[in-house]
Amino acid sequence: MKITQSEDTITAIATPAGFGSISVIRISGQDAFEKTDLIFSGKTSITQANTHTIHYGKITDDSGNIIDDVLVSVFKAPNSYTGENAVEISTHGSPYILKRILELLLKHNVRFAEPGEFTKRAFLNGKLDLAQAEAVADIIMARTEVSLKGARNQLDGLLSKKVGSLRDMLINASSFVELELDFAEEGIELISYKELSSKVQKIIIEIDALLKTYSFGRVIRDGVNVALVGLPNVGKSSILNYILKESRAIVSEIPGTTRDIIREEVSIDGVLFRLFDTAGIRVSEDAIEKVGVLRSREAVRAADIVMLIADVEQGMSSELLNEIILLSSEEKVIRVMNKIDLPHENNINYDIQISALTGEGMNAFLDLLKNKALGNSTYSEKSALITNARHYNSLQKAKENLSAANESIEKQMSGEFIAVDLRNAIDNLGEIIGEVTTDDVLNNIFMKFCIGK
Amino acid sequence: MKITQSEDTITAIATPAGFGSISVIRISGQDAFEKTDLIFSGKTSITQANTHTIHYGKITDDSGNIIDDVLVSVFKAPNSYTGENAVEISTHGSPYILKRILELLLKHNVRFAEPGEFTKRAFLNGKLDLAQAEAVADIIMARTEVSLKGARNQLDGLLSKKVGSLRDMLINASSFVELELDFAEEGIELISYKELSSKVQKIIIEIDALLKTYSFGRVIRDGVNVALVGLPNVGKSSILNYILKESRAIVSEIPGTTRDIIREEVSIDGVLFRLFDTAGIRVSEDAIEKVGVLRSREAVRAADIVMLIADVEQGMSSELLNEIILLSSEEKVIRVMNKIDLPHENNINYDIQISALTGEGMNAFLDLLKNKALGNSTYSEKSALITNARHYNSLQKAKENLSAANESIEKQMSGEFIAVDLRNAIDNLGEIIGEVTTDDVLNNIFMKFCIGK
Repeated sequence: MKITQSEDTITAIATPAGFGSISVIRISGQDAFEKTDLIFSGKTSITQANTHTIHYGKITDDSGNIIDDVLVSVFKAPNSYTGENAVEISTHGSPYILKRILELLLKHNVRFAEPGEFTKRAFLNGKLDLAQAEAVADIIMARTEVSLKGARNQLDGLLSKKVGSLRDMLINASSFVELELDFAEEGIELISYKELSSKVQKIIIEIDALLKTYSFGRVIRDGVNVALVGLPNVGKSSILNYILKESRAIVSEIPGTTRDIIREEVSIDGVLFRLFDTAGIRVSEDAIEKVGVLRSREAVRAADIVMLIADVEQGMSSELLNEIILLSSEEKVIRVMNKIDLPHENNINYDIQISALTGEGMNAFLDLLKNKALGNSTYSEKSALITNARHYNSLQKAKENLSAANESIEKQMSGEFIAVDLRNAIDNLGEIIGEVTTDDVLNNIFMKFCIGK
Repeated sequence: MKITQSEDTITAIATPAGFGSISVIRISGQDAFEKTDLIFSGKTSITQANTHTIHYGKITDDSGNIIDDVLVSVFKAPNSYTGENAVEISTHGSPYILKRILELLLKHNVRFAEPGEFTKRAFLNGKLDLAQAEAVADIIMARTEVSLKGARNQLDGLLSKKVGSLRDMLINASSFVELELDFAEEGIELISYKELSSKVQKIIIEIDALLKTYSFGRVIRDGVNVALVGLPNVGKSSILNYILKESRAIVSEIPGTTRDIIREEVSIDGVLFRLFDTAGIRVSEDAIEKVGVLRSREAVRAADIVMLIADVEQGMSSELLNEIILLSSEEKVIRVMNKIDLPHENNINYDIQISALTGEGMNAFLDLLKNKALGNSTYSEKSALITNARHYNSLQKAKENLSAANESIEKQMSGEFIAVDLRNAIDNLGEIIGEVTTDDVLNNIFMKFCIGK
């Protein structure tokens, strides 16, 4: 592994903001140890310390005032997260102390890290490929068992390995075409159209399989938005409360989500469901209700699943169903018939019938919800999985380019036409793991990271 | 140092709550290494690792699922914060991952730490005395340069050393009295009343000096509450804005403070000032204003300093001044005459005259504010300082007991009377540094800590 140590040394607070017992400041770059020694005094100097050792000492300012007693962890290149010389300073968990130490470091020409810059350096030093680097952010944001597994799968390189091997197959196939082009004048045939077409089609099939994992992958990474719709008094709140009670893990809300729209987030068998309780979707005369109607419609439009709830007394409203299908689509709707504990005539206009009061049918209902969310995926934890829109788009483009190549092959067109499409497809796959990247792509990816990662 | 390793091993999240790059879980106790090995797999087992080394590996659950890749820092007794075997697990900064790892540890009979329990163990193991342990919490909460220095002063043991030496002097003096009691029948005199009185008085003087640092110490630890009072249009807002602009460091608000009462917190030369902008303190007919009046009065009552602001046009209102003195006290009031940029007759009813518009007099005004807050303290960073009400109260009690002892000495009363008061005073001093403590006192102190410290 070739490590490039950045000339500029960067720093950031790595722990969440606020008061706590411990906070950690990260420093990485060529001069990380020397810069630390400028503000740290302990028994050993950091420059002299062994890698993966911890040193107690004091951070003092230029006037000799002690700012804090700290523990400094030393990581020597290439054995650090970034691959560079790196230091972690563990301080008392006081925002004021962190501020003072960062000010000192800035004074000594250590620069504030950009969001994701530590991970970006890890990527540039080959500690992680791009898909793995992206998984780091997903790991941090993972809030349920399933989403964590999906992100780990990616961090552990399952996707990278799969995409890398497809790319290798493609490079191999393409190399025959490229070689033939080099020897075009001699008219040597290294690979038959038939053989090439078979190779390309095989790769397309594999890419297709991977693309299909995205409906599942997206759900496990981002969760499922569920809108609850129904006429008044059909028991929406009872159903919501039942789900909240039954799902063993209620996921705590992220600060900043607007409480008046998201009602609750729950984890059902490790899958994150966001339940939106919509007030109503019909236009009303009342100005305040109008806002509610617009929000409700928005929630239905954005929902992955719409639960249309009716009760045995009022029956399923076909008007409401039609409105929902207009806003969403038929296959997203689950028609739920509630209150089957009450005397009722048979009615076939539902997908599931329940009683939120007695609990009858509720297990089947939760299973239906989960199956609707995950689709017919036969996901194995040991196989690669697409969870990220960027990867999906690159795979989609690779597939398009390969289809174009295959068309040229079937038309027995000249090698140049085929080669261009194959090259593009190779690049598309390379984008996913970062074999081919532009600064724009990198910046766009790491910008979304938190600072300090 | 005799280290007692607790049989029960405790754990807690040590970093602030939330999403971040890194979070840290602490484990301490006799079995900290063995417990960690139950969930951690790396190149080296933690039980075999050297102290102050860092180990990369994975945390896996009982089914072998990887929860996270982590760095484990190893601290062998007695060279850890608590003095016990201790481990810090540095994870990706995801609340979900922390939750999973804590669940695993609890399953393996590691117990959740109580607030301050790590520091309590450090105290019980003699790593810190009680005053130093209390300083740890103050260090974390320190929000300005001066408050940090005060807490460091205490953590570095200046107060403990001072109190310890006073206690030793007292034990020495008291030992003569106690010995005489043992040999009472023989009628041996080991120390004269005069000599004893001189020793006790010397200690009282030293305690008095220490007690006097509290007015300053409290200010540097807890900050200064300032109420701004004035008739409408005298320029309260302009003055407030000027202070906010001038004080180089605006201290960010702690979550949970009610924004409608506290207007702003600022650091002036490292001292924290809380500025309360009071609406008015006179009873009004308006129900809503009445609430404001009650709040304003409360702010004036609680204020360490009341700035009564007038302008040259309306002059200083003696009615308002009288009301404030009733709510507060004369020596807390600063009478500020604003708008001296306007043409005005001379008026002597003020302590300082300023123009918040032109800035005239504002530096002198800020100096006055600071001097009023700090009093006539001649505080040196190298001397002990009382910042904590508990310490103040114990010192006060010690002084009372010593005064009582001295009275008995002067009356030449029998040794028993003197001895009792001296013993009590020795205990009072011992309470400060934790030489004498009850479980109640300890629990009361550590309860106020955050969990994980």
